[in-house]
Amino acid sequence: MLTLHDFLDSGNGYKVRLVLAQLGLPYKLVEHDILQGATRTPIFLSKNPNGRIPTLELEDGTFLAESNAITFYLARDSHLWPEDKLAQAQVLQWMFFEQYSHEPYVAVLRAWKHVGFGTTPERLARVPELEQKAYAALGVMEGHLRTRAFFVGERYSLADIALYAYTHVAEEGDLSLSAYPNIRAWLARVAAEPGHVPITYRPAA
Amino acid sequence: MLTLHDFLDSGNGYKVRLVLAQLGLPYKLVEHDILQGATRTPIFLSKNPNGRIPTLELEDGTFLAESNAITFYLARDSHLWPEDKLAQAQVLQWMFFEQYSHEPYVAVLRAWKHVGFGTTPERLARVPELEQKAYAALGVMEGHLRTRAFFVGERYSLADIALYAYTHVAEEGDLSLSAYPNIRAWLARVAAEPGHVPITYRPAA
Repeated sequence: MLTLHDFLDSGNGYKVRLVLAQLGLPYKLVEHDILQGATRTPIFLSKNPNGRIPTLELEDGTFLAESNAITFYLARDSHLWPEDKLAQAQVLQWMFFEQYSHEPYVAVLRAWKHVGFGTTPERLARVPELEQKAYAALGVMEGHLRTRAFFVGERYSLADIALYAYTHVAEEGDLSLSAYPNIRAWLARVAAEPGHVPITYRPAA
Repeated sequence: MLTLHDFLDSGNGYKVRLVLAQLGLPYKLVEHDILQGATRTPIFLSKNPNGRIPTLELEDGTFLAESNAITFYLARDSHLWPEDKLAQAQVLQWMFFEQYSHEPYVAVLRAWKHVGFGTTPERLARVPELEQKAYAALGVMEGHLRTRAFFVGERYSLADIALYAYTHVAEEGDLSLSAYPNIRAWLARVAAEPGHVPITYRPAA
């Protein structure tokens, strides 16, 4: 059976748990408290030298890191990954956008203000810059969704899952979605997909 | 013909130019001076609303953004993309590692100190943190290469191209590779691949 090393509050981990749930794949969840440095221990670093969750452990003992690479591995042969090469590249475009232009701002503000990483004076000084970049990323999404139901090819895909993970809890980082009606409508569409589970979802042990 | 919107000093753009060269694909290069805000003009934002190079313009007028998504599009059916699903996911793992844990530190230090973005007092105050994170990323790469010739499956792939782009010019950001012999040997292997071109490469007009 697959084993997912994860931290329940993580949106990156949630992407993987959502894909596992929607594809009906059984797995064992092992939770690591990243607030207590659980992913920087020698034993965890032997699984993922970059010291991060989520990390997926395959049945043969291989470890796979990076949330968006893990969801690709799980879903490549499913309806969540398109067949057309350009559509595949567009799904990846939004996944890289998420990790480079969205997560470092939207997720980090939530981590500081909500998850428990805390707001040191140094972090508080950077909040305006992070908010500006978070809203810039949300603006790009809002414009794209003006004429679309989903991010790529008018079908729910890994691109939507990657962007939903932290966008749907953006307000926990004191970001407001009130000026983003297209995003709010898209969040509702994603949440209405068959097999959807919330970020707090744990599989039965 | 393909059109690549790029900035010659960009390692992200270089990934795409290297793939185009190694696959022998003809294209037109359009250079944009990102130091002068050329990617934030209304006309550029109509091509890529996220305002970044590289952006690839396909023959039908479709625009594709994000360097690692563009190289996937160009190389999916070539020797640079493996056939096995796990190997594909591992290539993506390293590409996401590059954009999240490597580029924001290794490339940004070079951008500030070498490319011309400049070192404001605020940026200088962040240099020690960026250096620490840059060396952490290089440490992960060094460990992985201890027993391997290339990042995935003992074959040169898009993962090597993604990580080569900014690692081979890391010293332009005042990072030293002297303590990373495995990385230096790997850089030499990548540079010896057939069809390799340097970061300054422009196609004939």
